[in-house]
Amino acid sequence: NIGLLVMCQNGIGSYEYALKVFGEERVACLILNAGAYKDEGGMVNLSGISESYIGQRGGVRNPYIGIVPEILKGLNVKGVSDIEPYRWLKLIVNASVNPITAILRMPNGVILSNEYIKKLAFSVVSEGVKVARAVGVELPKDPFEELVGVVRATSNNFSSMLQDILRKGKTEIDYINGALITIGEDVGVDTPINRALYLLVKSLESNLVNVWSPAMEYR
Amino acid sequence: NIGLLVMCQNGIGSYEYALKVFGEERVACLILNAGAYKDEGGMVNLSGISESYIGQRGGVRNPYIGIVPEILKGLNVKGVSDIEPYRWLKLIVNASVNPITAILRMPNGVILSNEYIKKLAFSVVSEGVKVARAVGVELPKDPFEELVGVVRATSNNFSSMLQDILRKGKTEIDYINGALITIGEDVGVDTPINRALYLLVKSLESNLVNVWSPAMEYR
Repeated sequence: NIGLLVMCQNGIGSYEYALKVFGEERVACLILNAGAYKDEGGMVNLSGISESYIGQRGGVRNPYIGIVPEILKGLNVKGVSDIEPYRWLKLIVNASVNPITAILRMPNGVILSNEYIKKLAFSVVSEGVKVARAVGVELPKDPFEELVGVVRATSNNFSSMLQDILRKGKTEIDYINGALITIGEDVGVDTPINRALYLLVKSLESNLVNVWSPAMEYR
Repeated sequence: NIGLLVMCQNGIGSYEYALKVFGEERVACLILNAGAYKDEGGMVNLSGISESYIGQRGGVRNPYIGIVPEILKGLNVKGVSDIEPYRWLKLIVNASVNPITAILRMPNGVILSNEYIKKLAFSVVSEGVKVARAVGVELPKDPFEELVGVVRATSNNFSSMLQDILRKGKTEIDYINGALITIGEDVGVDTPINRALYLLVKSLESNLVNVWSPAMEYR
């Protein structure tokens, strides 16, 4: 009995860490494509369910992995033989939608409703695609279409990163854009737009509003 | 009597337009390094005065240009034989401070008080320096030191671009970062960070808050 640990954090870093500690055999990764938000009463509400994926990498298959989709039946989880392409697809979409909505403090729909933001979002995806290509990951779907699909399905949602900023918490930016920037550096791909968004979110995360009187009060 | 028109808008575009209409002889450019803000009663307050510059370009010197520093005595205006380097210096500093403070809705001081924002601001200046070099402009001062000096002198000020966004008006972004991006394209210098900030400010200018309920209300 080797057991199975299922990681389902966004971004790059936590799955890798678990693999190091527990070994390739005993860790799987769940790419959860479902939206949720906490309401004023503290209740977590499910706001949308798409297809999710569970799998390992390098041809490894833990004997218990087939149970997970059954346990999480309501979440529409599909088993895949290599999870990496699905992780990268979500990473690239998250790297675009999450920081932009956090910086603008707008629901996801802004990505498609404003022509300037759409351009910005697509250029973030372009950088991500270059990094993915450089590390040899073949994306399972067109990431631009995926971005459009995700935004359409969640247009009224506040991204997790925006929710984190609003509750003055830490965001996942280091595991999402931060990871893309670092991996990009390793493989010689420049990611300046990811870097600009990264720095803006890191500054928001630093809780600037407590240091400087917000300009809103000046109005 | 040929007269003298003095242009003192920020950025690139308006001086060039006036030159086309009135000719090189009759137009001068004033680079005004003074901060001002409108208070709640509608009164414009001067919040800081640095050295300002007036001049023309290409060796042209209108006979009336010497009067301007006298007329504007309180503003510390210095005559220079070529105004272009001073325009570019201000352009590059504005391209950094203005959009960043407008996006974050913070006073100018944020540029130096937060390490992430400082990095972002310096990388915008770096792009500007590359464009200036490519068009053959030699800056009269180190633009990084100029940025630091301007931010220190105006740390509690709200940049004009932030003030424009707060009053839901149009900003100077097209003449500042927009101009840098376009000129960069002409001379083969990529300006991705300027582009990211440009797109974010253009989206704020589009008055998104009227389209989407601001996330602030969700808190």
